[in-house]
Amino acid sequence: MAFKAPVQDIRFVLKHLVDLEGVLALPAFQELDTDIVDAVLQEGARLVEGVIAPLNRQGDTHPPVWSDGNVKAAQGFDKAFKAFAEGGWQALQHDSRWGGQGFPKLVGTPFNEALHAASLGFALCPMLTDGVIEALTAVGSPEQQDTYLPPMLQGRWTGTMNLTEPQAGSDLALLTTRAVPQNDGTYRITGQKIFITYGEHDLAENIVHLVLARTPDAPQGVKGISLFLVPKFIPDAQGRPGIRNDVWCASIEHKLGIHGSPTAVLMFGAGKGETQAGAVGYLVGQENRGLEHMFIMMNAARYAVGLQGVAVAERAFQLARDYALDRVQGQAPGRQGGPVAIVQHPDIQRMLLTMSSLTEGARAVALYAAMAHDKAHHHPDPDQRALFKAQYDYFVPIVKGFATEMSLEVTSLGVQVHGGMGFIEETGAAQHYRDARILPIYEGTTAIQANDFVGRKIVRDAGQVTHQLAARMRATLTDLREGQVRAGDHADAFEAIAAGLEHAIADYERVVAFVLQVSSQTPRVAYLGSVPFLMLSGYVHAGWLMARAALAAAQCIEQGETDVFYSRKLSTCVFYATSVLPRVQGLANAICQGQIAETWADAWAQSLVS
Amino acid sequence: MAFKAPVQDIRFVLKHLVDLEGVLALPAFQELDTDIVDAVLQEGARLVEGVIAPLNRQGDTHPPVWSDGNVKAAQGFDKAFKAFAEGGWQALQHDSRWGGQGFPKLVGTPFNEALHAASLGFALCPMLTDGVIEALTAVGSPEQQDTYLPPMLQGRWTGTMNLTEPQAGSDLALLTTRAVPQNDGTYRITGQKIFITYGEHDLAENIVHLVLARTPDAPQGVKGISLFLVPKFIPDAQGRPGIRNDVWCASIEHKLGIHGSPTAVLMFGAGKGETQAGAVGYLVGQENRGLEHMFIMMNAARYAVGLQGVAVAERAFQLARDYALDRVQGQAPGRQGGPVAIVQHPDIQRMLLTMSSLTEGARAVALYAAMAHDKAHHHPDPDQRALFKAQYDYFVPIVKGFATEMSLEVTSLGVQVHGGMGFIEETGAAQHYRDARILPIYEGTTAIQANDFVGRKIVRDAGQVTHQLAARMRATLTDLREGQVRAGDHADAFEAIAAGLEHAIADYERVVAFVLQVSSQTPRVAYLGSVPFLMLSGYVHAGWLMARAALAAAQCIEQGETDVFYSRKLSTCVFYATSVLPRVQGLANAICQGQIAETWADAWAQSLVS
Repeated sequence: MAFKAPVQDIRFVLKHLVDLEGVLALPAFQELDTDIVDAVLQEGARLVEGVIAPLNRQGDTHPPVWSDGNVKAAQGFDKAFKAFAEGGWQALQHDSRWGGQGFPKLVGTPFNEALHAASLGFALCPMLTDGVIEALTAVGSPEQQDTYLPPMLQGRWTGTMNLTEPQAGSDLALLTTRAVPQNDGTYRITGQKIFITYGEHDLAENIVHLVLARTPDAPQGVKGISLFLVPKFIPDAQGRPGIRNDVWCASIEHKLGIHGSPTAVLMFGAGKGETQAGAVGYLVGQENRGLEHMFIMMNAARYAVGLQGVAVAERAFQLARDYALDRVQGQAPGRQGGPVAIVQHPDIQRMLLTMSSLTEGARAVALYAAMAHDKAHHHPDPDQRALFKAQYDYFVPIVKGFATEMSLEVTSLGVQVHGGMGFIEETGAAQHYRDARILPIYEGTTAIQANDFVGRKIVRDAGQVTHQLAARMRATLTDLREGQVRAGDHADAFEAIAAGLEHAIADYERVVAFVLQVSSQTPRVAYLGSVPFLMLSGYVHAGWLMARAALAAAQCIEQGETDVFYSRKLSTCVFYATSVLPRVQGLANAICQGQIAETWADAWAQSLVS
Repeated sequence: MAFKAPVQDIRFVLKHLVDLEGVLALPAFQELDTDIVDAVLQEGARLVEGVIAPLNRQGDTHPPVWSDGNVKAAQGFDKAFKAFAEGGWQALQHDSRWGGQGFPKLVGTPFNEALHAASLGFALCPMLTDGVIEALTAVGSPEQQDTYLPPMLQGRWTGTMNLTEPQAGSDLALLTTRAVPQNDGTYRITGQKIFITYGEHDLAENIVHLVLARTPDAPQGVKGISLFLVPKFIPDAQGRPGIRNDVWCASIEHKLGIHGSPTAVLMFGAGKGETQAGAVGYLVGQENRGLEHMFIMMNAARYAVGLQGVAVAERAFQLARDYALDRVQGQAPGRQGGPVAIVQHPDIQRMLLTMSSLTEGARAVALYAAMAHDKAHHHPDPDQRALFKAQYDYFVPIVKGFATEMSLEVTSLGVQVHGGMGFIEETGAAQHYRDARILPIYEGTTAIQANDFVGRKIVRDAGQVTHQLAARMRATLTDLREGQVRAGDHADAFEAIAAGLEHAIADYERVVAFVLQVSSQTPRVAYLGSVPFLMLSGYVHAGWLMARAALAAAQCIEQGETDVFYSRKLSTCVFYATSVLPRVQGLANAICQGQIAETWADAWAQSLVS
């Protein structure tokens, strides 16, 4: 069966878990209502299901081709990109001053999830463009905004982020690309950037590169990095693509996955452009504050990559579920009769429900974060804005780290459900497995997310956000325990979910206290446990939202809803609480033994060095 | 750095954990001693490091090519196979009656691990041949043995297993390939087999297919399956490859990984051979007992696939470790100074030690099982033979299931350690990730292993083997607690390892009791938890052997050994006990909530069907 955007689950989460009504009631979104949101969800689903999802395998098997500095996009991507642009989808979340539609992130996110699920390789192009739009909206000069934002919002021009150099990946302090100021106020950029997603292609009239580089007198390290705008074609006086700038695609990479997306090596200042001697660049924001400015884009991109994790997990789940309903093999244990569809086998059910409950849980976390983002930006009360900003900042590394690591497990199970067929490329399960593998790496590895999480999101505010969240999670526990009394048929579900959540909250609090305690005296111990801590936090918060989902689903059933969606939701919630959430115990116990583990691990590492 | 066979770790395990001396003292191995074993390890290492390991990437990028029914092996594989055959390596573990060298499995296993690590795609060919040799040695007629075993042991002919058909994968009851008896005592085989590893290639003079098929009057289901030998070329009176049999390779698969290994679709009886009207086959063993006979081969193959998991994990670890020592990026947290090799970062240490400790633990489990195999076959005391046979049977699904699932995690971490470079195919980390993905699928998926484990290895003997193993694990706990008193510098290590092991044993016993309890009344609950139970058992037994490794390593240090190997071993043991073994708690708590999880999971599945 073809991919279907998970509109029903998204509607449920928006309505019951993440306060869509509250977001639509914010002054900025007065003109929107739930009917409009629903129309966006449905129109978006139509586009991605009908036009983009069918291209996914083609992008894998017929990837972009490099030739003499030009890159021809993957087969069929041109038409799809045109449909995407003409539908106005690039403008969905952006400011109406430049032609944007001004939807909240909470509405843009479900569309983006579906778009990524349809094709990660395709959706990367709009995703990077979104990031460039956000950065220029925030720190671009009025002239830069007027020149570059409208064509990007219209989907005529696309954007890229240029951070990585061969010697500077996670460690941007090491970057060496140079930007030399000219008399006319522009800069000349020279250097090499690698891993540039959609760094070169033929889908758009122009490509807007945002580039990190150093000016001649810049301080060492990250405090000497500035942000530059380097257009592939320099806009003329009418804003049309003009002379060819000196930025060139030297090659594209042969990658494990996301073949549909060209990953470019870009040479700035090879002397081959019409500009001579260096690519013309324009300073964006303030000199030496480039990293800070780029972080606007990075945060949006990190969130978006987390969403890619949810997306590819959803797609892998649907493919595996459909196969399990179709493939007949073996007798069902504990039952009479002949061969059955493999969905009748307990271990297939375990795998499918692990996939589905992780995906639903991570989606709820991502949408919760989107809601926090919207309230952080648009709530009339400054205290609420501050509160939600802290929450959003807290959730970004979780969405990025947890949802992408989760997607590795889900896409791997997707292969496993298919048995031998899963290993054959035609089936498609293998592509999801390959595609997903980049997600915990790009836009900051899971370790980078985890360090940010521990350093900036936990330690810096002494765990304040965690205390707020723990209190909210405990409130849900009370709701479950109270609901249990009148839950009737669902009493066992509520009891199991409450028990799982209670343990998980306790472990979460124990680990937060441990991390706060060790981080000042023995920071290496905190960092040894930072990825497990990030994952634990993801599991716990997803467990909390799945518990709330169970409460909401049971209430809907009680109120007479007969759609099978609600009982299925109860199933995934029970499964998550009983079969996935217990992982938290192992993670917590490992983290809290960090002192001795770190001592011996570091001794091991030093023995290799010496 | 190039791949190195892990000879030092293997020597350590053989000496301290799995009683090599006891195996060499068995009457069957009187002529062997540890010097000979060491020479085998070193010679084997020389071959795989120098000749085979360098071909691994080539097999991936220049896979076998099918053309008009013929398959040209991957580039360079012909010379390597010749070196392998001429070195006598195919004969290593086999019976001297047919030219074998008669080494115990405990000695053949380390060589095979290194061979698989060098190239999974290459080593599959000898691996399948080993299985055919074992099956014919056990149930072949004297004439079949005389005709087929010597050329296979010499590496001139290779072997295959033909089980799967499009509609019959895990469920062999569904297979339809027919075998019609002829007047001359032979059979004519017709049907299609898929996923046949090295089903066609040009490395050998002849290919010996073992094929499951049904005779015309055979009962339905698995009790109507017989085993047939179908040579590609029918041997003439002198035993030389003679007329071309009617078995043809219709195509080879485009797979996610192990590209070096041709995976064939075989047509039996397409009428194109010199034999006309069906492939000539010879009954092996008794009619209708084919599945039972094939299980001889399957058990050997399952063990071997588990070993592939250890092998690819070792290779992925070495690649990641070397990269981490080389790549400079970021400051070391908690320390002064500039950019450091990334091995100095706590999270890189966490990943590398997770990889290394899982690999070492799984290797110890695999070698323990090999020891049990040798004693099961060759111990003079029938009670001991029975005891070790039960242990070997118990460990085969663990080696297959646990070591292969573990290899997915290790190869994934191997990509992650490389950061963005890990996603680029040239680096090699991605190949290990792709190659490993077949291991939990072929020769019986992890679910098939887990069902075998629960049904035949736990429930059938009412948990007897588990009780024996629990008692042995508790004895190690006592050793640790006693050793702790005089452990000096290592007291903290012993304490942490003992604490981890004690929890793990208790969880193991709790889960065994739960599985025994539910398996009769609610078998679906037992099967829902069977894969987690299999994994839990693997973690616990690996934890036990790693605890014994810590005791042995500490003793060696105490006795004056100064090689850094011993302190590194202590590190991996401590890390395993504190950071990996705690996963057992989450698994145990999930399994023991199986009743409610199964109820809701099955309701979910039924809602999809209806």
